Amino acid sequence: MAPGYPLGVFFRATAEVAVAGYTEHKTEILKRLRRIEGQVRGIEGMVDDDRYCIEVLDQVAAATRALQAVAIALLDDHLGHCVADALASGGAEADEKIREASRAIARIVKS
Amino acid sequence: MAPGYPLGVFFRATAEVAVAGYTEHKTEILKRLRRIEGQVRGIEGMVDDDRYCIEVLDQVAAATRALQAVAIALLDDHLGHCVADALASGGAEADEKIREASRAIARIVKS
Amino acid sequence: MAPGYPLGVFFRATAEVAVAGYTEHKTEILKRLRRIEGQVRGIEGMVDDDRYCIEVLDQVAAATRALQAVAIALLDDHLGHCVADALASGGAEADEKIREASRAIARIVKS
Amino acid sequence: MAPGYPLGVFFRATAEVAVAGYTEHKTEILKRLRRIEGQVRGIEGMVDDDRYCIEVLDQVAAATRALQAVAIALLDDHLGHCVADALASGGAEADEKIREASRAIARIVKS
Repeated sequence: MAPGYPLGVFFRATAEVAVAGYTEHKTEILKRLRRIEGQVRGIEGMVDDDRYCIEVLDQVAAATRALQAVAIALLDDHLGHCVADALASGGAEADEKIREASRAIARIVKS
Repeated sequence: MAPGYPLGVFFRATAEVAVAGYTEHKTEILKRLRRIEGQVRGIEGMVDDDRYCIEVLDQVAAATRALQAVAIALLDDHLGHCVADALASGGAEADEKIREASRAIARIVKS
Repeated sequence: MAPGYPLGVFFRATAEVAVAGYTEHKTEILKRLRRIEGQVRGIEGMVDDDRYCIEVLDQVAAATRALQAVAIALLDDHLGHCVADALASGGAEADEKIREASRAIARIVKS
Repeated sequence: MAPGYPLGVFFRATAEVAVAGYTEHKTEILKRLRRIEGQVRGIEGMVDDDRYCIEVLDQVAAATRALQAVAIALLDDHLGHCVADALASGGAEADEKIREASRAIARIVKS
């Protein structure tokens, strides 16, 4: 660490190294999450207005599908970056990354 | 319609008859939906902070499960009220309610 | 119970009254299940032949979807017959049938 | 191909090169698939005996969960072998393997 660097800058730089796999698609993923947040708020409005159960259920199913699509997009980026990088480095860390990804996939399949 | 009733009152009364199946649990369902809205907003914050993919994925899976639990609660109320009432009245409407519920269940199972 | 009736006949008759909700579609449901059994046997053959993981996975996903479609068909019949009959009779049994159906739906959604 | 080699041996050798990711767990996966095949056959027997819908549904849900567990095990092996090997080799093939795995995961999540 070069002398004279304020600590904040150093930590920021460190954070940039351990970058998330979805960095490239961050804006798009945030947009999708905000749309889902809006969908859930819309469902609250429907319940507040005593809208018919089936209409509410269909919107809940739509929001669920949208969340699962985000999960699949995040997994795709995770495999293509974090897992790929760990495998390129090789060794025990690579095995651990594969196992971690498999466990995450299992949780999503069961959700 | 009794003469002298303003139209607004008449419509309000009609709407009160076609009550939603979840009326009894409305407060609880709204509370759960607001919590899910908060979960989704929390996920946006995690993505904004470049949090690790697997942590984000786990929160997406948790929000998905919470949404599916709301769907199951809504279905339970729908069967216990709307479908039960239609079956008590009998006739073609009862058959239609069963079919409508089955289609909604299918959409939730596939979501 | 009329005197002189052997007990076995009486119980058999009782069992015939409590008929399964899918009776009308029994042949079709059996045909679908046999096809799924064949799909699973086909997957065993693929694994035995060391076929590529993704091909095997796609067949597993197809068999899973086929099983869930059978579940939805069974539920549709169950709502339209067993639950409908219990609701027509009314009382505590009707409530119990609704609750039982909801629990079954929850298990299918989570499977 | 060395002269004098019987064709069968040559093909066997070739097949061993393009090995499936699940080779190490082949016996275990076959055992699980056979058990699922037996579960499905058991469900056919239940339907044939007019067993109560909810009992049948619970067995369908159990078989569905067992199939999804096989899918997750296959994916784990696929990531740990086929995808890992492609990433070790690098290049365009590695990207294609990641994309192929993501599409397979998406089909399983939606099944």
